[in-house]
Amino acid sequence: MKNSRKVRIQKSIEKKSDRVLRLSSRQGAQLLTTIGYQAEGLTSDKKIWKELRGNEQLLREHLGGKGTGLVMMSRMGIPVPPAFNLATSLCNTFLNQQRLPQWVKDRIDISIKGLGQNIGKTFGSMTNPLLVSVRSGARVSMPGMMDTILNLGLNRDITEALSKKNPDQARFWWDCYRRLIHMFATVVLGVEHDIFEEHLDQLKKQQNVTNDIDLSTESLKKLCGLYETTLIELDRNFPSDPMQQLYLAIEAVFRSWNTDRAVHYRRLHSISDDWGTAVTVQAMVFGNWNEKSATGVVFTRNPSTGDKELYGEYLLNAQGEDVVAGIRTPRPIVELKNEIPKSYSRLTKVLQNLESHFCEVQDVEFTIEDDQLFILQTRTAKRTAAAAFEHWYQLTHEKKMTKRDALTRIQFDQVKQLLHPSLKVTTQKPLAIGLPASPGAVSGRIFLDPDSAVAASQSGQAVILVRKETSPEDIMGMAVSQGILTATGGMTSHAAVVARGMGKCCIVGCGEIEFDPKAGTVKIGSQEFAEGAWVTLDGSTGRIFEGNLPTEPVRWSPSAKAIFGWADETSSIQVLANADTEDQALLARDLGAQGIGLCRTEHMFFDKERIHQFRLMILADDESSVQKLSIYQEDDFFKIFTAMKDLSVCVRLLDPPLHEFLPREEQRDELSLLAENLNWPEERLKNRIAQLQETNPMLGHRGCRLGITMPRLYEMQTRALARAMVRFWNTNHRIVLKVMIPLVMNPQELKVLLASLKKAFSDEVEQQFSDLGVLKKILKYVKWGTMIELPRACVVADQLAGMVDFFSFGTNDLTQTTLGLSRDDSARFIPAYIEKGLIKADPFESLDQDGVGQLIKLAVERGRIGNKQLDIGICGEHGGDPESIKFFRGLQFDSVSCSPFRVPMARLALAKAELALQKKEKR
Amino acid sequence: MKNSRKVRIQKSIEKKSDRVLRLSSRQGAQLLTTIGYQAEGLTSDKKIWKELRGNEQLLREHLGGKGTGLVMMSRMGIPVPPAFNLATSLCNTFLNQQRLPQWVKDRIDISIKGLGQNIGKTFGSMTNPLLVSVRSGARVSMPGMMDTILNLGLNRDITEALSKKNPDQARFWWDCYRRLIHMFATVVLGVEHDIFEEHLDQLKKQQNVTNDIDLSTESLKKLCGLYETTLIELDRNFPSDPMQQLYLAIEAVFRSWNTDRAVHYRRLHSISDDWGTAVTVQAMVFGNWNEKSATGVVFTRNPSTGDKELYGEYLLNAQGEDVVAGIRTPRPIVELKNEIPKSYSRLTKVLQNLESHFCEVQDVEFTIEDDQLFILQTRTAKRTAAAAFEHWYQLTHEKKMTKRDALTRIQFDQVKQLLHPSLKVTTQKPLAIGLPASPGAVSGRIFLDPDSAVAASQSGQAVILVRKETSPEDIMGMAVSQGILTATGGMTSHAAVVARGMGKCCIVGCGEIEFDPKAGTVKIGSQEFAEGAWVTLDGSTGRIFEGNLPTEPVRWSPSAKAIFGWADETSSIQVLANADTEDQALLARDLGAQGIGLCRTEHMFFDKERIHQFRLMILADDESSVQKLSIYQEDDFFKIFTAMKDLSVCVRLLDPPLHEFLPREEQRDELSLLAENLNWPEERLKNRIAQLQETNPMLGHRGCRLGITMPRLYEMQTRALARAMVRFWNTNHRIVLKVMIPLVMNPQELKVLLASLKKAFSDEVEQQFSDLGVLKKILKYVKWGTMIELPRACVVADQLAGMVDFFSFGTNDLTQTTLGLSRDDSARFIPAYIEKGLIKADPFESLDQDGVGQLIKLAVERGRIGNKQLDIGICGEHGGDPESIKFFRGLQFDSVSCSPFRVPMARLALAKAELALQKKEKR
Repeated sequence: MKNSRKVRIQKSIEKKSDRVLRLSSRQGAQLLTTIGYQAEGLTSDKKIWKELRGNEQLLREHLGGKGTGLVMMSRMGIPVPPAFNLATSLCNTFLNQQRLPQWVKDRIDISIKGLGQNIGKTFGSMTNPLLVSVRSGARVSMPGMMDTILNLGLNRDITEALSKKNPDQARFWWDCYRRLIHMFATVVLGVEHDIFEEHLDQLKKQQNVTNDIDLSTESLKKLCGLYETTLIELDRNFPSDPMQQLYLAIEAVFRSWNTDRAVHYRRLHSISDDWGTAVTVQAMVFGNWNEKSATGVVFTRNPSTGDKELYGEYLLNAQGEDVVAGIRTPRPIVELKNEIPKSYSRLTKVLQNLESHFCEVQDVEFTIEDDQLFILQTRTAKRTAAAAFEHWYQLTHEKKMTKRDALTRIQFDQVKQLLHPSLKVTTQKPLAIGLPASPGAVSGRIFLDPDSAVAASQSGQAVILVRKETSPEDIMGMAVSQGILTATGGMTSHAAVVARGMGKCCIVGCGEIEFDPKAGTVKIGSQEFAEGAWVTLDGSTGRIFEGNLPTEPVRWSPSAKAIFGWADETSSIQVLANADTEDQALLARDLGAQGIGLCRTEHMFFDKERIHQFRLMILADDESSVQKLSIYQEDDFFKIFTAMKDLSVCVRLLDPPLHEFLPREEQRDELSLLAENLNWPEERLKNRIAQLQETNPMLGHRGCRLGITMPRLYEMQTRALARAMVRFWNTNHRIVLKVMIPLVMNPQELKVLLASLKKAFSDEVEQQFSDLGVLKKILKYVKWGTMIELPRACVVADQLAGMVDFFSFGTNDLTQTTLGLSRDDSARFIPAYIEKGLIKADPFESLDQDGVGQLIKLAVERGRIGNKQLDIGICGEHGGDPESIKFFRGLQFDSVSCSPFRVPMARLALAKAELALQKKEKR
Repeated sequence: MKNSRKVRIQKSIEKKSDRVLRLSSRQGAQLLTTIGYQAEGLTSDKKIWKELRGNEQLLREHLGGKGTGLVMMSRMGIPVPPAFNLATSLCNTFLNQQRLPQWVKDRIDISIKGLGQNIGKTFGSMTNPLLVSVRSGARVSMPGMMDTILNLGLNRDITEALSKKNPDQARFWWDCYRRLIHMFATVVLGVEHDIFEEHLDQLKKQQNVTNDIDLSTESLKKLCGLYETTLIELDRNFPSDPMQQLYLAIEAVFRSWNTDRAVHYRRLHSISDDWGTAVTVQAMVFGNWNEKSATGVVFTRNPSTGDKELYGEYLLNAQGEDVVAGIRTPRPIVELKNEIPKSYSRLTKVLQNLESHFCEVQDVEFTIEDDQLFILQTRTAKRTAAAAFEHWYQLTHEKKMTKRDALTRIQFDQVKQLLHPSLKVTTQKPLAIGLPASPGAVSGRIFLDPDSAVAASQSGQAVILVRKETSPEDIMGMAVSQGILTATGGMTSHAAVVARGMGKCCIVGCGEIEFDPKAGTVKIGSQEFAEGAWVTLDGSTGRIFEGNLPTEPVRWSPSAKAIFGWADETSSIQVLANADTEDQALLARDLGAQGIGLCRTEHMFFDKERIHQFRLMILADDESSVQKLSIYQEDDFFKIFTAMKDLSVCVRLLDPPLHEFLPREEQRDELSLLAENLNWPEERLKNRIAQLQETNPMLGHRGCRLGITMPRLYEMQTRALARAMVRFWNTNHRIVLKVMIPLVMNPQELKVLLASLKKAFSDEVEQQFSDLGVLKKILKYVKWGTMIELPRACVVADQLAGMVDFFSFGTNDLTQTTLGLSRDDSARFIPAYIEKGLIKADPFESLDQDGVGQLIKLAVERGRIGNKQLDIGICGEHGGDPESIKFFRGLQFDSVSCSPFRVPMARLALAKAELALQKKEKR
């Protein structure tokens, strides 16, 4: 769809606000109406409507995820209970006015009648009543964050009448009624859940039964009475008029958009507060009808690994909330095959159908009523990144989707998840084993409730939240935890689903956990732990260990590797890594880096012996220290070259201010040693160090200014590079060495430095080879460049470009100088700026495209004027940020460089940017 | 002359290098030839040669100041001894090769013959010898910095022969010969001056005479023998061949271009090392010929005041060096009228002629040989600025020059001098009175030699250099001194001339000074002083006082005021001042500021009581402190408005980081008081202060970031402004108030702040006047603006401009951020950068036009797109720098603002920029 067209539809949709859109019944649509879906006139423009229906995204915006799922499924001929929908826009209307407008109520009246007619029942009828559920559903899934109410449409009179009319259904109706009162009271009337649970538990004790389903009709009837009395005592009114129930339930669901946990979830997932939730009013189907009835949740694949196997649980003769809340332990989905084979067989076909249609692992709620299957909801499963990659890989392999589709679908958060560490092989015996609900390996201190978890996290501790089961109220505690461990619940329980969504390690249903609330301790296996004790979770195997065990980076699955290969094929821009050591270089290479874009030499000096020599060099211009350091550096460089053989390594000459290397006042031993070696009185040393302090070190004596004022420093580094290059040359491997000069502000600096360093490099190579031919060959593998990290460098980029082979934008410093913003100090006010909407994002995380970006654009244009062959890259933090990468792609950079762990993100971001551009061009 | 023409001539001049240019004798040119003046072919193109001769600047470049002066004078028919010249380019040739090329020697041979023929003498002749002087002379005058040798062409044989032939001239010839040996030995052979002086002194004692002229012929002859013997003992060869003397003397003069004192002088006066000196070889005329002979130095006006009176000294029967070196005390020029009336009368006419011709006070060397006047040299006098202004004013008044000429001629250094303070009226008795050689009033500590003066100055002390007389070796000591005081020497002595050139206060020839070299003390009048004691000099009256007396800014002469008035008429750009207090505002107004371009509010808080309140506000958000501060500020603003009535005042809201206002650790009393007032434990206060420290305060939490995060701060200031405006309104005077927001980086900031501050301003005015009409009227006098001091602000200037009435470029911060250069730290390496030629000037002194300037240009262009009415100014240090001002004029700024003392400089710079542009347009 062309953009202008899209805008037109959107405009037309937004114009009016109170019409009912009737979905064409021709496609068997079960979603009968949508109230408040602002679509005046659309029905008369059939073509636009067709496009709109085909535009899943637009549907989601207005109907919410649940409503859209129902539309999509009904169009696919999948059995769903009929429903109608209140559009997301009404959520805002309601929240602003704090009541449903009369016109909405009028539409609800019409719609509920239509719903009844559709299945031959009547809402509020004494003989053949329509029962409905009222369900939340925002544009994106927020599992468990908002409210749902089932079984609406009953009251004591109706229940009594129905029981009398069909005595064999009496138990069923009273069961529905007690569920309704309980749920309505807690969700709509705000009564504590526990009060009703206590009544139920007491009754079970009295009757000496353990399960709800073993309670007799009489007991359930009695329970209903107890519930009613309780509400009267609490002065809360349970309306007997079904229409009142419906209005109030709808209002309660809208209101639940703004519960603390929902707001917090939105913050965590960057969901706009303005979106609102839609409400779906759906005819009830009953998993608790009889023994040929069931309700369950099923994933079309293993959400942890992506393996092709149904994965889910069900309960016979139960309603949906029983599964999610973990009240009875559900049974694995495969067992349904024996219990209700016909419906199971139908279910498997439907699931396959859904997965193929959406090209995503689906998380499906189903109900079987008297061996008749209904799908209540389908949504993209909260699954691990590994599972998603595996699935997409298989689908692509099976030609059910294209590589391009797969790349488009990957979310950046999933890439982050892929990089979860795993446990190193250990001989330690696990304390216990639970269900491996979400992979990764983490260590942390045990905390037993969300509040103490939050407090511990704020004080900087690594937290493992251990709970019997989690509920939506625990969301903040989960968010701050490294890992989550629960005693009950299955692979689709709240804890499992939410943890997977957050990409957090999680183990659930570990039966060997016992809580001692009085002592505030927990027993895992045979061992007792107080809060604060260290444990390690292995979310991939379900094992729980005592202590803080070592981890290692995850090994990528072949499918993930393959998909990232496709990403690299898509983009022509190289992804490089910022790596300063051999280890980092190897890691970067493993994560797909095509070279090193920034090797910072300063970190090489922080070793104890080296820093001592470095200090001697700075303070006394000591020649022997220079020699020693040069040999250390040669060795470092040689190792890095070896790690990156056949690729490229870009080495930045020393950048930070010298005083960063000097001992601080409290490092008395180092001060004494240094003074002794210098043969200076300590006072003199201290004075000299004080002299070297700077008011604004970021704008001080650093970068190539050191190279200008202490020529032997850069020369030492260059000579070390030359010798390392010669050694590496002799191994018969090759790398491209890029020598980079930082903080250049004018062409004169660059000219002077390039002249002296090129000479030093050649001199040193010549000392190793008398054959000038070799020197010539080696020099072909050496490129010279400058960082562009000052606004002035951007302005004179044409003059700089003529002298070098490459530019590398240092966007960290360029952001600091362009915005006059110290990275170390801006935390004092940047949050306030974001809060007040004065800036969109922290400019050190995502490139300030309107400001810094404009200077970069200028520098690129001028740079290319000055040197047509100029190689252009970026090596600041922004090299790993997808939004920023899109910007660099737009300017046709040759490479981006980022920290090793962000390399995969950058590879994907480049592919996505490329695909987006191609798509745009096609249009 | 058109530019292209000029280039053509220049090119043609540079092409060849070894030709002799013969000046047309038709004009009576006494400068016969110029060797090395690269002018092949020019003589055949008479038209070009005519233009060239008319181009004094071009002549100076090649012939040096002295050579050019001779050409000009001979063309005016003024009697000058004939001469020939070695061009400045030969200086570089010699310094590179360390010898004179043979072709140059050949040319010298030809030229010296020509010179002799011109006056009928022969160089090296035994009977009628030509004697010559060899004189230095660079493009600009460097008085006393380079060498001169007189009386070349004699040896013992020639002297002997001449004495015998004309016994009455014997004394004269031996006198010339002893002078030659002495001078040649010290200048060419590097022998210590003192050795010869000692011989002379001993001889005088033996002969019992005090003056050289009283020595007999025999004594002089003996002295020559002693000199010769001494040289033999020292193994230094005095060549008896006159041609060898000449070659060596020329080489020595070229070599003197690179003496330490010359190099230092060039640094001080920004003279290029490449220019080189020319050498003039001139026929000697003899002031020591007889009693109708004399030599002297004379200024065409009083070089201190500009008054129309001859001002100078002479010695009868002496050579020029006797006057300059102060060996005999010279006599005032007027006395010459009685001694040699005919020559005196001729001299006065010549002087008038020279002054009219050059439109500058002239400093003239003359020699009278047997009542025949010769002018040896004329140059623009080193005179005080007051004298120059007075002279130009008179000339303009007399219609001898135009206002434009006057403005073009003023040098910026002269403006600085104009602002010298003068002594406040005092009843204290002076210690002594000397000659008022260079005006101004200064106080400092006495130092008796240049080295200790330099050391004291480096340790931050104010220095008064006290010497018997100064010599060129003292130049570095003079440069670091506040003022100079000598015991001997007249108004044209070395000390007087150099001090006037440097614009330094100077008193010379104070007979009441006695040195005690053993004790290291000096007696001034009747009082004894050790080094380090304080004295005060009044250079305008010659009075010397004990102690450190108060001074006051100079009152401008009516002539200076008039000339600056012409400057203001010339330019349409306003000159404003940076002024934070009533006093500064009044001073600025006195110095010609047309308003305040930057009133920094932070300085208003540093008063003891205020800073306490300010701290309470910062730390405790204390409301009553805010109220108190607001009242203080209202008062400040009202006073400044009153000082600037009918003009404009631009107030910048608070800019620096808050921690600058907090007490430091060592300010224990203030810490205690503050803790007590806050009711905090001191530890808490210290922690809070530590928290507020920043790593890079320049890039930190400051400027409008304070306005965003602490809204009440800017609001308080704005309300104070509003109340002050209302109070001032009620006085029935008017000012334009400009409210300026600092450190803006994006349009959102500006939008939020402008909205809240405009509202606060209006609210506050409304509280004073219920009449909304008055509010409207007042608001017409209020302009809102932003500083442009971040590169990002330049980039988004179009968006900013749409919201404001004015921009003011904060070039200090813009330089810091564009170059990534902290003003507080850059002293560590900027000198090295200047030394190595990596930057032309300190970018905080003169705008970095190629870098920062480009961003300013961008911002101006975009700003004018965003707001066609936009008022654009600059308020950084560069607002007072002539080169930078030229740049701002080019971008058509509306105003420049600088510190009050730089206001006159800015006024002049704008006029000059305007005139330069007009001149360019004319061509």
